[in-house]
Amino acid sequence: MQFTISTGRHKECIEITEQVRSIVRDSGIERGLCHVMVLHATAAVIVNENDDPNIGVDLLNALDGAVPEHAGWLHDRVDNNAQAHINASIMGPSETVPIEGGDLVLGTWQGLMVVELDGPRASRRVEVTIVPIA
Amino acid sequence: MQFTISTGRHKECIEITEQVRSIVRDSGIERGLCHVMVLHATAAVIVNENDDPNIGVDLLNALDGAVPEHAGWLHDRVDNNAQAHINASIMGPSETVPIEGGDLVLGTWQGLMVVELDGPRASRRVEVTIVPIA
Amino acid sequence: MQFTISTGRHKECIEITEQVRSIVRDSGIERGLCHVMVLHATAAVIVNENDDPNIGVDLLNALDGAVPEHAGWLHDRVDNNAQAHINASIMGPSETVPIEGGDLVLGTWQGLMVVELDGPRASRRVEVTIVPIA
Repeated sequence: MQFTISTGRHKECIEITEQVRSIVRDSGIERGLCHVMVLHATAAVIVNENDDPNIGVDLLNALDGAVPEHAGWLHDRVDNNAQAHINASIMGPSETVPIEGGDLVLGTWQGLMVVELDGPRASRRVEVTIVPIA
Repeated sequence: MQFTISTGRHKECIEITEQVRSIVRDSGIERGLCHVMVLHATAAVIVNENDDPNIGVDLLNALDGAVPEHAGWLHDRVDNNAQAHINASIMGPSETVPIEGGDLVLGTWQGLMVVELDGPRASRRVEVTIVPIA
Repeated sequence: MQFTISTGRHKECIEITEQVRSIVRDSGIERGLCHVMVLHATAAVIVNENDDPNIGVDLLNALDGAVPEHAGWLHDRVDNNAQAHINASIMGPSETVPIEGGDLVLGTWQGLMVVELDGPRASRRVEVTIVPIA
């Protein structure tokens, strides 16, 4: 199952918990694992709190501090987006979340987010795969 | 299947390989995948060596170097734990480990650990989900 | 299913997409999840672009910047490879990729790579586990 999101900024965190939850509920699967993956090499999927959206802002600022943009990266000569590739690898393209009672098992403050690292982009594809447990 | 651990320090790495291994053995499942997730937004699950517990200390010190605590993060105004949220997203809340012969498939020096980033906490919930392969 | 790779440098990124794809195709499984894990505590598995191999070079240089080698790490007194353990935990030992139509579901610029952090090594074991969806 695939859905797309559009991103409006160069870098931002966009919550996708509700889109994923809908797919899980529509599947009718009561128990299993839900795998969520962004099909792009300059974005990531993370789990974090979105009740305070500044957590996403802090994350992006922290990544800018740890891995500075345009710090002489070789790939910048090709696409000028090396930092996005580096941080996509560090965070990873996917998360896996358990399903119980037909719903995602997440802590109170956990949500799923796409991290856009090289936007804005009209369409970022998110693949959702559900493995049922009999 | 869920178990809880308590954490005794502000930040620490706590091995949980034996708890997870017990759940796998008790399940009687011979082959599959074992997904281990901490249900909190200020902790992470990692795989690493615990034979030398200083590896966990080094990891936490390295994260303090890469993402300094209280470096003007916006979320610190709300909860004062922005660094914990940032590092939880970077490491991620879960790991998935294969099961073969009714046991976890791990390298000689690999173990599962919870990384506490905002403790001490009386109870951190760890969800273990096993997907059998027929 | 397991295969091994040898690494030729102290640190390098080695693409393994074709090895994993072969295992998926040989399995005859049309739909499911493919879990790929390196069974060592000083290596990682990531997803990124390998069309420009400099992305892997940039990643390793960025990690050297964020987590300096031999910066007084305690584990260096034992094995002198603390940085490798730290970065292995940050990136993680595994990735999970969907299978559809008997093939890996990856974005155009996504490939699977082993990140060697403490090489060269004659043999790094990679475990591939496929969970079919009926």
